[in-house]
Amino acid sequence: MRNGSSVPLRVRRLGLHTQKQAVAVMRTDCHVCRSEGLSARSQLVISTADRSIQAELLQVESALLAENQIGLSEAAWTLLGVGEGDEVRIGHAFPPSSLRHVRARLFGSRFSRADLDDIIRDVIAGRYTDVHLSSFLTATAAAPLDEQETISLTGAMMSAGDRLEWGEQVVVDKHCIGGLPGNRTTPIVVAIVAACGLMMPKTSSRAITSPAGTADTMETMTDVELDISRIRRVVEEEGGCIVWGGAVHLSPADDVFVRIERELDIDVEGQMIASVLSKKVAAGSSHVVIDIPVGPTAKIRDTRTADALAARMEAIGQHFGLFVSCIQTDGSQPVGRGIGPALEAYDVMAVLSNETDAPEDLRARAVRLAGLVLEMGGAAAKGVGPALALQTLRSGKAWEKFQRICEAQGGMRTPPRSRHQFVVEAAAGGVVSALDNRAIARVARLAGAPRSAAAGIRMLVRLDETVERGQPLLQIHAETAGELGYAHEFAERSAPLVRLK
Amino acid sequence: MRNGSSVPLRVRRLGLHTQKQAVAVMRTDCHVCRSEGLSARSQLVISTADRSIQAELLQVESALLAENQIGLSEAAWTLLGVGEGDEVRIGHAFPPSSLRHVRARLFGSRFSRADLDDIIRDVIAGRYTDVHLSSFLTATAAAPLDEQETISLTGAMMSAGDRLEWGEQVVVDKHCIGGLPGNRTTPIVVAIVAACGLMMPKTSSRAITSPAGTADTMETMTDVELDISRIRRVVEEEGGCIVWGGAVHLSPADDVFVRIERELDIDVEGQMIASVLSKKVAAGSSHVVIDIPVGPTAKIRDTRTADALAARMEAIGQHFGLFVSCIQTDGSQPVGRGIGPALEAYDVMAVLSNETDAPEDLRARAVRLAGLVLEMGGAAAKGVGPALALQTLRSGKAWEKFQRICEAQGGMRTPPRSRHQFVVEAAAGGVVSALDNRAIARVARLAGAPRSAAAGIRMLVRLDETVERGQPLLQIHAETAGELGYAHEFAERSAPLVRLK
Repeated sequence: MRNGSSVPLRVRRLGLHTQKQAVAVMRTDCHVCRSEGLSARSQLVISTADRSIQAELLQVESALLAENQIGLSEAAWTLLGVGEGDEVRIGHAFPPSSLRHVRARLFGSRFSRADLDDIIRDVIAGRYTDVHLSSFLTATAAAPLDEQETISLTGAMMSAGDRLEWGEQVVVDKHCIGGLPGNRTTPIVVAIVAACGLMMPKTSSRAITSPAGTADTMETMTDVELDISRIRRVVEEEGGCIVWGGAVHLSPADDVFVRIERELDIDVEGQMIASVLSKKVAAGSSHVVIDIPVGPTAKIRDTRTADALAARMEAIGQHFGLFVSCIQTDGSQPVGRGIGPALEAYDVMAVLSNETDAPEDLRARAVRLAGLVLEMGGAAAKGVGPALALQTLRSGKAWEKFQRICEAQGGMRTPPRSRHQFVVEAAAGGVVSALDNRAIARVARLAGAPRSAAAGIRMLVRLDETVERGQPLLQIHAETAGELGYAHEFAERSAPLVRLK
Repeated sequence: MRNGSSVPLRVRRLGLHTQKQAVAVMRTDCHVCRSEGLSARSQLVISTADRSIQAELLQVESALLAENQIGLSEAAWTLLGVGEGDEVRIGHAFPPSSLRHVRARLFGSRFSRADLDDIIRDVIAGRYTDVHLSSFLTATAAAPLDEQETISLTGAMMSAGDRLEWGEQVVVDKHCIGGLPGNRTTPIVVAIVAACGLMMPKTSSRAITSPAGTADTMETMTDVELDISRIRRVVEEEGGCIVWGGAVHLSPADDVFVRIERELDIDVEGQMIASVLSKKVAAGSSHVVIDIPVGPTAKIRDTRTADALAARMEAIGQHFGLFVSCIQTDGSQPVGRGIGPALEAYDVMAVLSNETDAPEDLRARAVRLAGLVLEMGGAAAKGVGPALALQTLRSGKAWEKFQRICEAQGGMRTPPRSRHQFVVEAAAGGVVSALDNRAIARVARLAGAPRSAAAGIRMLVRLDETVERGQPLLQIHAETAGELGYAHEFAERSAPLVRLK
């Protein structure tokens, strides 16, 4: 980047919200724009004495700005760290030079580690526009990253972020590759495993294409945006935590990719593996269990694909000294009843507190995963893990541990309840023959999840259940009438969420 | 799209320039946003009684807007066709349903004609964000469109636009696939061919990744943004025209793709073929000559690739009843002296007016192409075309025709001259062994071309010329000091534009 033009401008905070995209607004008749050859939607560099950021330029005709002013969006304001009226200089932004690696790969070459270091550096610096980011991710979806490239991307993403160390030989972790609505085992597994004495500092992500990520669900019960020193304190006290990974910058490029993948509604395998493993290694984990749900409408459709993914993840983990163990689970229908941050939180609490009507499938999955983590981490002999896990749950020790973790993270709170609901009823009697995970997740998202914490779906039937005409199949929850209508409209127009025969 | 929320808002024109992207600004505390679940960067639908557009939402905290107001960017204002204070309703935009075709293709399927009709319809309606557009184009770069898909895309792009008819059996055209700076033969070819009595209504594009398109160059000499009735009048009077194709909506998706391709700095073959041929067919052409420059730093690097491209274009042309004839030309160095809209215009006028120092290579290429067009269109016997073309040029008839065409298009004017220049000199003596088309084009663009019409490069040496130390190799032209410095800085940091040995 250049240091910018010779004529300084004074910044003005516009209170303009643009998510993470830095935006600058200048006057169309601004002489600095003219002399720099900048026009609307140009990328420009804005510099103070000690910081430079890249931003997208918008222009206004009106007298909103004085002659020598540049307006900044909230994201630009924060990144640049300025005060009202401070002087900045601007200049053209060089197109990111690492884009040539993306172009070369489109035409058949492979990424080297150095290429990916360049790309990740430019992405984190905000030099990739949405067009560039989408092209990078699409290129790696169209011609998947090979094993060496995935190792390189993992390394590049990891090196770009912070790295935690715990002073323990064994630090366990678990991860689910997603695609299965309501599969919220993590809070239960962490509570069981930490109650059994293993260290499990869990950093979770927010939803990518799903209605809720673990971080979204946990946030309805306690704070999840903790800095590193607070995470350390929680883990030292309780042996475990369940926090949002983005707040600790373990793999800062990941959030940028997530936003684009969400807009494209795709998950890119190589990027997904790199994203998961870079965060596990950076989080200081030594052993990780990975849950791969398999089913006709899950993210992974068949066992062969799941086997290949498992082999790839285990090999790449090994490269970074991380023991990875993958298990395939049933992905034919949503897990538990709730889908959406708060609705899933209620399921988690029901299982942990041994409520009589707690969803049995969620309990069974959590026990199976926790058992494997306990065995892998040396807290249970081979084959004995699940029994220990179940006992820890039944005894109330897991529930006690979970409440202590929430208290340590900032206090436990009650998840919100939605203001609007709509019940979808069976148009005819029959047996539930299929549940469409993708369509169910889509409707939950349209209802506002994960942005609206109380929004989502509550499933009222499961596979093979016999239902009568008019029987409620599911309930859509939303925080606003607009969103409820939108989700309901989509559900009516799409293929049936619940198929009867 | 939905018709929008039940509560109307009043529009306010913000004078906000965002290129073609429709942007709406609402208050962060707006109750309509809340009830619709909209947040910054959401896509929303804005509707009047008879029109709906999609726009990106930005939010402001400040008192810039009243409670019930929605601010509109210039693009949104124009598309919606509203007046100050008019009522609109807003709602969530459905994600474009045709995106599922893009996703499916990423994972191995092929586009059908119906898929591409869906995609082009959504693109033209503004339902594709930058992220979606970039993904579509990247997907077709990574796994190129096959012949059937290219036919489908050509048909879809053509059907989405206007279509011209001329009432003549033979309507000729020419096109250059680009990649060679300064290759501005079109104005000369049209002048020669029209002077020989064939009908040649030429619609040209603006630059994609080059420093100038024919439309950019012509615009320095006359008007190019003519509507269909004015184009008809020019062609009826003079037998030819040289206008910007975008102004007549022959293939409206093309401009949208061009903007994204420019940001990615790639040309996608299938999209390029569809873009060219859809416009030729829609423009009512019956015969078209296509110039394919081949050289180590041209867009096409070797004759095999050029042969394959020629075969593909001829086959697809045939499918639409268009006779396509491709010729390969020398693409080893820039053509003429000027690179950039106005600098190329001066070369064109020098050739047409038979100036003694007119660039000989530009003249020779134009004569060869015009000769082939004359033969193809039946105005010259096989083998006699180039002689007729040269004679028409030498006699002054082509120059006279060119001036008449410019007058008919709105009056002939003198291209601008740049305000700032910088001369790059030979660091040592030697023989010019290579010229880097891509790097030369890049520097010309950084100097401001094509946006700044007078900006670009004037080449002062050609291949195999012997130069002395300190001899000027090329001159960078810019309209602003900032751009000159930027281009010069890049030229110094990049590989040498002119290689000596």
